[in-house]
Amino acid sequence: MKKREDVISETAPMKAHWRTVLHEVIFEADTPLGKGFDILLIGSILVSVIAVMLDSILAVRSHFGSLLYGIEWLFTIIFTVEYLLRLVCVGKPLKYAISFYGIVDLLAIIPTYVSLFLPGSQYLLIIRILRILRIFRILKLAPYLGESRLLMKALRASSRKITVFIYTVMTLVVIFGSLMYVIEGGDNGFTSIPRSIYWAIVTLTTVGYGDISPQTVLGQTVASMVMITGYAIIAVPTGIVTVEMTRAFGRKVSTQACPECSAEGHDSDARYCKFCGATL
Amino acid sequence: MKKREDVISETAPMKAHWRTVLHEVIFEADTPLGKGFDILLIGSILVSVIAVMLDSILAVRSHFGSLLYGIEWLFTIIFTVEYLLRLVCVGKPLKYAISFYGIVDLLAIIPTYVSLFLPGSQYLLIIRILRILRIFRILKLAPYLGESRLLMKALRASSRKITVFIYTVMTLVVIFGSLMYVIEGGDNGFTSIPRSIYWAIVTLTTVGYGDISPQTVLGQTVASMVMITGYAIIAVPTGIVTVEMTRAFGRKVSTQACPECSAEGHDSDARYCKFCGATL
Amino acid sequence: MKKREDVISETAPMKAHWRTVLHEVIFEADTPLGKGFDILLIGSILVSVIAVMLDSILAVRSHFGSLLYGIEWLFTIIFTVEYLLRLVCVGKPLKYAISFYGIVDLLAIIPTYVSLFLPGSQYLLIIRILRILRIFRILKLAPYLGESRLLMKALRASSRKITVFIYTVMTLVVIFGSLMYVIEGGDNGFTSIPRSIYWAIVTLTTVGYGDISPQTVLGQTVASMVMITGYAIIAVPTGIVTVEMTRAFGRKVSTQACPECSAEGHDSDARYCKFCGATL
Amino acid sequence: MKKREDVISETAPMKAHWRTVLHEVIFEADTPLGKGFDILLIGSILVSVIAVMLDSILAVRSHFGSLLYGIEWLFTIIFTVEYLLRLVCVGKPLKYAISFYGIVDLLAIIPTYVSLFLPGSQYLLIIRILRILRIFRILKLAPYLGESRLLMKALRASSRKITVFIYTVMTLVVIFGSLMYVIEGGDNGFTSIPRSIYWAIVTLTTVGYGDISPQTVLGQTVASMVMITGYAIIAVPTGIVTVEMTRAFGRKVSTQACPECSAEGHDSDARYCKFCGATL
Repeated sequence: MKKREDVISETAPMKAHWRTVLHEVIFEADTPLGKGFDILLIGSILVSVIAVMLDSILAVRSHFGSLLYGIEWLFTIIFTVEYLLRLVCVGKPLKYAISFYGIVDLLAIIPTYVSLFLPGSQYLLIIRILRILRIFRILKLAPYLGESRLLMKALRASSRKITVFIYTVMTLVVIFGSLMYVIEGGDNGFTSIPRSIYWAIVTLTTVGYGDISPQTVLGQTVASMVMITGYAIIAVPTGIVTVEMTRAFGRKVSTQACPECSAEGHDSDARYCKFCGATL
Repeated sequence: MKKREDVISETAPMKAHWRTVLHEVIFEADTPLGKGFDILLIGSILVSVIAVMLDSILAVRSHFGSLLYGIEWLFTIIFTVEYLLRLVCVGKPLKYAISFYGIVDLLAIIPTYVSLFLPGSQYLLIIRILRILRIFRILKLAPYLGESRLLMKALRASSRKITVFIYTVMTLVVIFGSLMYVIEGGDNGFTSIPRSIYWAIVTLTTVGYGDISPQTVLGQTVASMVMITGYAIIAVPTGIVTVEMTRAFGRKVSTQACPECSAEGHDSDARYCKFCGATL
Repeated sequence: MKKREDVISETAPMKAHWRTVLHEVIFEADTPLGKGFDILLIGSILVSVIAVMLDSILAVRSHFGSLLYGIEWLFTIIFTVEYLLRLVCVGKPLKYAISFYGIVDLLAIIPTYVSLFLPGSQYLLIIRILRILRIFRILKLAPYLGESRLLMKALRASSRKITVFIYTVMTLVVIFGSLMYVIEGGDNGFTSIPRSIYWAIVTLTTVGYGDISPQTVLGQTVASMVMITGYAIIAVPTGIVTVEMTRAFGRKVSTQACPECSAEGHDSDARYCKFCGATL
Repeated sequence: MKKREDVISETAPMKAHWRTVLHEVIFEADTPLGKGFDILLIGSILVSVIAVMLDSILAVRSHFGSLLYGIEWLFTIIFTVEYLLRLVCVGKPLKYAISFYGIVDLLAIIPTYVSLFLPGSQYLLIIRILRILRIFRILKLAPYLGESRLLMKALRASSRKITVFIYTVMTLVVIFGSLMYVIEGGDNGFTSIPRSIYWAIVTLTTVGYGDISPQTVLGQTVASMVMITGYAIIAVPTGIVTVEMTRAFGRKVSTQACPECSAEGHDSDARYCKFCGATL
C-alpha cells in the first residue's frame, strides 16, 4: 500500500486527490486521522455486536427492543456508507469486493436488509465480529500477524494429512453409526442412521452430551470401542501439527559445511565456523 | 498393472483379449472409458449409501419405502455383476477375492441378500462407503496416498507402544470399574461390574455421557481420580505418535547399502560407510 | 536473602536486631526455628482450608457450625498477626505488600472480615490454598522450582501464538453460537446468543454437559462441525507448547557473550564466535 | 534366574532338589512343563475374573449364584496353594512377598476370605487381572517389555514436571470450585465446596457429565473460563511427555568429533567418520 501511494505521490505530487486522502484514512493507520478512524471503527463494531447479542435476550428485547432496533439500523447504515466509500477510494474495487475482507464487509451489512423479509436473520449480523480481524491488520500488530502466518503455514503444510485424517474419521463415524442403528434401534434413541452418525460424532470427539446413549450390552461394547478409538486417534492430528510446527518454527540450520574442517550444523546466520573459526 | 499389460501386448499384440479390455475399464483409470467407469461407480456408491441412510428415517421410509427398496436391489444387482466381472477379468481371482478391496466389494452386496432372511441387516450396506477408498486409489490421488502411507508407517512403528498403552488402559478401567461397583452399588446405576467398566471407559476417555454418574462422596473422589488419570495419560499416545511421526516425516535415511559390508541405515548425507569406512 | 543478611551481619555484627531474627524465622527456612515456623504455617493453612470446606457442607455446619466459625476466626486472627509481622520485619514493606505473595496473604484474611457485612463471602477464604505456594518456595524445593520455571518459560515463549489461538477460538464460538441461535431457537434451549455461545464453548472444548443440545437435523449438523473442529484444533495449542518445550528443555545455549563483538546466543559447544570468528 | 540355576546345577549336579524343579515350573517358562503351567495359570486367572464379573450381574447371580460361588472358592484355594508354593520354592521368600508381584498375588486371594465377614468385598477379586502382568513377564514378551520400559523411563523423566502440573490443576479446581459454590449456591446443585470441586474436575478434564451444571449467567461465564483453561492446558502434559519421549526414544547421537575433520553428529554406533572415512 505504502509503495503504491509513494508511486502516486511521486508521479502527481501536486494533485493530492481526495480519493488518496480517503484511502489513507480508511485503509491505512499511519496518520492520526487514519488511526482515529480505525479506533472509531473497532468501537462501532463492538457496540454493534453487543447490541445484537443483547437483542437476542428476551428480557432485554421486551424492554429495550426499539432502542436496539434503532442501533442496529444506525450501524448498518454507517457500515453501508463505509463499504461504498471503500469501493470508491480503493484502486481496484472488484479485487477488494471479492477479497476476504471485502466479502466480510458485505456480509456484515446484508442481514439487516434481509431481516425485512426474513425475520430472525438479523442475528447473523454477528458476522461483524470478523471485521475486527481487519482492524488487527491495519493496526499493524506485526508480531501477532507473524505468529498467525507461522501457524497458518504449519496448518497448510499439514492440510493433506489432515484431509486424510478427516476422511478416515468420517468413514469411521458412518460405519459405527450404522452399526449402532442396527444394534440399538429406534427405541433407545438411535432413530435413524443420520441420527446415529450424529451420536458417533458426539462420542468419537469425546464431547458426550448424553442425549443419546447406548442401553444394550452389545451397544455399550461398541460404544466403548468408539470412545477408545476417539481417545487414541486424537494423537494423530496432534502429532501431524506438532511435526509441521517444529518445521515451521524451527531454527534454521545451515546445510553449509565449514571449508576448513568440514563441520556441519552451523546456524544459518553464522558467518564463521564455530569449531575452527574459519570464514564460512 | 501397466507393465503386465505391456508384456501381454508385446507377446500377443494382435489378440487384444476382451478380458484385457475389461480389466482396463474396471481396474484402471488411464483410458477415457476407464475414467468414465470410475466416475459412474463413485456416483452409484454415493447414491446407494444415501438411499440406505434415507431408508432408515421412519418418515422417509413410510412415503418412499418401495422406491428405496427398488434402488437398494438395483444397486445390489449392479454391484453383484461388477463383482463377478472383476473376478472374471482379474489375473488372479483368488488373490483379489481375499484382498482388502475384494472383501469390501463382497461385503457391499451380501447384506441385501441376507436381509431376505434377517430383516434389518440391509442397513449394513453402509459398508459400501469403504468402496470409495478404492476409487481414491484408482483415480491416482498419489499425493494423498503418499501422506496416508506416511501416516500408516508412523502408526505401525508405534503399534507396540500403543498396544502396551491400550493394555494399561484396559487394566485401569477393569480395576476402577470394579472398585466403583463396590463403592456405589446398583442403586446409583452401577448395577454390575461390566456396566461399571463401561462407566469407567466413558469417564477415562473424557466422553462423560452422564447416564451413569457417582452419587456418593467416596465414589466422586474415585471418579475424580479416574478423570485426572484420563486427562493426563492422553499425553502418552500423543507423545508416542508425535515421536514416530517426527521420525517418519523427518530425517531422510538413505536406502543405499554399503558396497563393502552391506550395512544399511546410513544418513542421506553420508559419504563413507560409518561401519567400515568404505566409500558409499 | 542470604546475601542481604550477610551484609547486615558484617556491617553490624553486634546488634542482632529483633527484626532480623523475626525476618529469619518468618521468611527463611534455614534455621530450626524458621523451619518449625514454616511447618506450623503449612499445617495451619491446611486445617483452615479444610475447615472452610467442611463449613460449606450443610450436614456438617448444622452440627459443628459454631466450632467451625470459631476456627475460622482463630486462623483469621493468627494470619492477620502474621501478615502484620511480615510487614514490620521485611526490608521494603510496600514492595512485599504489592508482590504476588503479599497480595495472596492479604486476600487470605480479608473474606472473614467482609463476611460480617456480606454473608457467604467467607468461602472465598479458600484462596488461602495459594499461600502454600510460598511454602514450597521457602522449603527450597529447588528442583521443582526449576521445573516450574522451565514450564513457565515455555508457556511465556508461546504466549503470543496462544493469544492468536484463543482469539480464533473466541471468534469461532461467537459465530457458531449465533448460528445455532438462529437455527435452533429458544424452544430447544438456545434461548439467547450469549447462552448459545456458552453452548458452543461447552461443545468446542469437548466438555459436552448435555444441558443444552441441538434437536433439529440442521442444528445437529452444525453441532457436528463444531465438535470436529474442537476435536481437531486441540492439536494447535498442543503443537505450539510442544515445540516451545522442546526448545526450552532442549539445546543448551551458552550464556557466554563474544569478547570481541558481544554477540550472544552461541551453542554451548561453540569454540569460536560464529559472527566474528574470535575465540570464545 | 538362568544363571542362578546354572550355579546350583554346577555345584550340586547330582542333587536336583524338588524345590529347584518346582521353582522352574512355577517361575520359569523355558521348559515345556513351565510353559504349560503358565498357560494353565493365565487361563485360570481369566476364567476367575470373568466369574467375578458375571457374579456381579443380578440376572446371572440369581440363576448361577451357587455355581459361581463354588468357582470363586475353587480358584481362591488353587491360588492360595500356588501362593504358598511360591513362598516355599523361591530363594528369598520375604523379598518375593514384598515385591510388586508378591503383593498382587496375595491381594488376589484375600478378598474371598474377607468376604466371609464383609459381604461384597469379593468383587475386589478383580485385582487378579493384575496377575496377568506377570504372565507377560514370564512368557518373555521381550519387545513389549522393552517398549514398556521406554515408556516408563519417559514418564519417570517427566514426573517432576507432571507433579508441578498436577499441583497447579489441583489448586485451580479448588479455587474455581469454591468460586462456583459462592456464585451458584446449593439450589443449582453446587451444594458444598467439595461437591463444587468435583464439578470443577469434571469440567476442567472436559469429561462433562452434566449431573451438575451452572444455571446463572455469571456461573456459566466462570464455567466457560474453566473449560477453555482445561482445553488449553491439556497441551502442557502432552508437551512434557512428548519432549521426554523424543529424548527416551531418540537415536543416540555420539558427542564424539572426527579426529581428522572435526565433523560431529555421528551415530553412537558409528566406527568411521561418515564424512572423511577416518577411524573414530
